[in-house]
Parts: sequence; structure tokens; C-alpha cells
Amino acid sequence: MKDLVQELREFAKERDWEQFHSPKNLAMALVVEAAEVVEHFQWLTEEQSKNLPSDKLKEIREEIADVMIFLTNLADKLGIDLLEAAREKIEKNKKNYPAAKVRGKALKYTEYER
Amino acid sequence: MKDLVQELREFAKERDWEQFHSPKNLAMALVVEAAEVVEHFQWLTEEQSKNLPSDKLKEIREEIADVMIFLTNLADKLGIDLLEAAREKIEKNKKNYPAAKVRGKALKYTEYER
Amino acid sequence: MKDLVQELREFAKERDWEQFHSPKNLAMALVVEAAEVVEHFQWLTEEQSKNLPSDKLKEIREEIADVMIFLTNLADKLGIDLLEAAREKIEKNKKNYPAAKVRGKALKYTEYER
Amino acid sequence: MKDLVQELREFAKERDWEQFHSPKNLAMALVVEAAEVVEHFQWLTEEQSKNLPSDKLKEIREEIADVMIFLTNLADKLGIDLLEAAREKIEKNKKNYPAAKVRGKALKYTEYER
Repeated sequence: MKDLVQELREFAKERDWEQFHSPKNLAMALVVEAAEVVEHFQWLTEEQSKNLPSDKLKEIREEIADVMIFLTNLADKLGIDLLEAAREKIEKNKKNYPAAKVRGKALKYTEYER
Repeated sequence: MKDLVQELREFAKERDWEQFHSPKNLAMALVVEAAEVVEHFQWLTEEQSKNLPSDKLKEIREEIADVMIFLTNLADKLGIDLLEAAREKIEKNKKNYPAAKVRGKALKYTEYER
Repeated sequence: MKDLVQELREFAKERDWEQFHSPKNLAMALVVEAAEVVEHFQWLTEEQSKNLPSDKLKEIREEIADVMIFLTNLADKLGIDLLEAAREKIEKNKKNYPAAKVRGKALKYTEYER
Repeated sequence: MKDLVQELREFAKERDWEQFHSPKNLAMALVVEAAEVVEHFQWLTEEQSKNLPSDKLKEIREEIADVMIFLTNLADKLGIDLLEAAREKIEKNKKNYPAAKVRGKALKYTEYER
């Protein structure tokens, strides 16, 4: 993970692209890349999305990589440790959605049950 | 990173939320969380986005954590190693955007210069 | 439609919010509102999304209204007539996706069939 | 507006694409198209976004048309009148953000001032 941060810093620096990388702009790039992931799934059923042909999967892997790249860039600009932030959020979620209470029902997630 | 994947698997399993976690649905959650990051920046200037007050930064840190959580979940469901995928994409980008050629100009990024 | 454009101009002017309404910022607000629509659907099955309880529907109606508001604002700032632009795009789509050729198969839409 | 709704119904029917147009899927398409608008603006300054060259503007006009098309489709599927919903939301916003109180300060919009 630290290697990735370092590599992305160098990548931007070598290209003098840091001038474009304000947090505002990186947030925009992040949502654009996330939507490119969504585009692959929009007309698929949930079942189809679980059984992707290998060429599709390869394309999606690249889009997911793009999301990861901009997420890492954005977190770095803001001085945020991605893994640490994720772990802390999971701890918080554990408290907010205690397994015993939400099991099967998926309360906040949706009021619908399957 | 591997710990994070493992923790998220357990989190979903304990809550019986795996039934909701088709790749299609996780992609939707991903873009929703990415947009929640964007929301914090939409009325800020680029300069303001570089100088966030600490309470704002704390909120954004949580939104970024949410993106990381769903990105990790999605990649895991598809059998994708996030860090490996990102590193491979960076190698590809290095070839597609050679520093000597794009420096300062940010070709594909934008036809505009600052 | 013209009334809506006019009303939104006055709404922003009265609040001196035009300073925030650059096309860049309005595009961000647009995707944020679109994602808020998505949020309502992310854990639902397609079937559930066709049979929403009335309170959910009311909430979604407001989110859809927000998308329409920012889309109208953005188009207005760029001197674009929304209805005209949509109609022209449909004409273009008719040529690109001739019914006789794509029927049932939904070519570009997806390579998958149901 | 009513013509647009009618035209889109026929367009989908002729191609037998209604099977793909669940509200869940249309919401996904909506956010994808909104993000394609954002993509055009992500590396621009706000000033640049106000002074687009005509070829860029033409491209953006098509992306905006796509958002309008899916928004209209989605609203139609849910039995929502887009213009009516937008007008009602504006009335609500007028009450929630009284001009006298929020002028210049843009309270909820942002805690920052320019």
C-alpha cells in the first residue's frame, strides 16, 4: 500500500500533473471511475453480475484499478491512511449494526427483505 | 490489505448480508459512496479543497473509508487483488502517457492548459 | 419547461448563489443527486424496484426532482435547451440502434441476453 | 415534455428494451450518464468551465441529453411527472432556504464563503 502511494506521487510529479490534483478534482475523477464500473453492470441481472465472462472481468478489473488509483491519490493529498481509515470505519459499523440485531433483516440497508 | 478483506468477509457473514452483495449491488454502493465524497467538495473552490477545516476533513475521511470498504468488497467478490490491479494499471498508464510527451500539457487529461 | 428555467434563475439570484453555480460545480451537484437516487435502489431486487411502497416513492420523487433541478441549471448555464437536446439525441440513437437490428438482443446495451 | 415521454416509450418498445428498464437499472444508467458529464469538467478550473470551446460544448450537450433521456425514462416508469416534481421541490426549497437568511452565505450549501 505504501509502495502504491509512493508510485502514484512519482507518476504525477514526472508528468507535472500535480497542478490538476486538487482534492476537488480528484473527488470528481473518483466518482467518474466508480461510474465506469457501474456501467458494466447496469443492464445485467444480479445473477449475471456473479458470472462474468473472462473478457468482461478483465475490463472491470481495469476500471476497479482506476478507482483504487484515484482513491489512493485523494487520500494521500488529504493525509489520510486508507487502510487505517477503513479499519476504523468497520469498527464503527460493528457498533452501529450489531450482528444480533440486524441479522437477516438488513435494517438500515433496506427495509425490504428477500 | 489482506486483513481488511478478511474482516469485511466476516462482517458481512455475521450479518447475513452476503445475499445483498452481488457485484451489481456493490458497484451501486461504490458509486453512491464516491458521490458522498464529491458532495463535500461541490461548492468549494479548488483552493478551499486544499485547506479543509479539521471537522470537515474528519467527515471526508469517513466517506473515503466507505468507498474503500465497498471497493474492497467488490474486488473480493470478483476475485481481484486490488493492489495488484492498481499496480498493473499504473504500468499501463506509464506506457500510454510517457512523461516526456505529456509533461505540463496533460494531453488526454484535458486539452486545456493552466 | 421555460417556466422552470426562469424560476431557477430567480431562485439562485435571490440567494446570491450564482457565484457557486459554475458549470463545473453544477456537474458535481448533478452526479451527487443522481447517486442519491441510486442509493434508494442499491439493495433492492429489480422486482422490488418496480413495486415501491408509497413512502419510498415519495422520497425518490424528491431526489429525482433534485436531479432535474441541477440538470436544468447546468443546461441553462451552458445555453442548452434540454428538450431540444434530448430530442436530437433520440434521433441519433434511432439511427445508431435500428430496431430491426437490435430488437431483443440489446447489442450495445449488453452482450448478455435474458 | 409529454412528447418526449411518448417518444422514449416507443423507442424502448420498438427495440424490446423494456425488459432492461427496471427502475433499479435506469437509476444506474442515470448516474453513469451524469458522471460522463462530470468527466468533461474534472480537470478544468471553474473559469474554464464557463468558457468552453464549441466542440467541447457540443459533446457535453450530448451527455446532458443522455441524462435527460434516462431521467425521463426513470420518472415515467415510476409514474412521476418530472416538471411537477421539480416545481414542488423548488417551493419546498424556498421555504427551507429563505433568501433573507441565506443570501451570500449559502448556509447549507457550504459553510465556506467566497
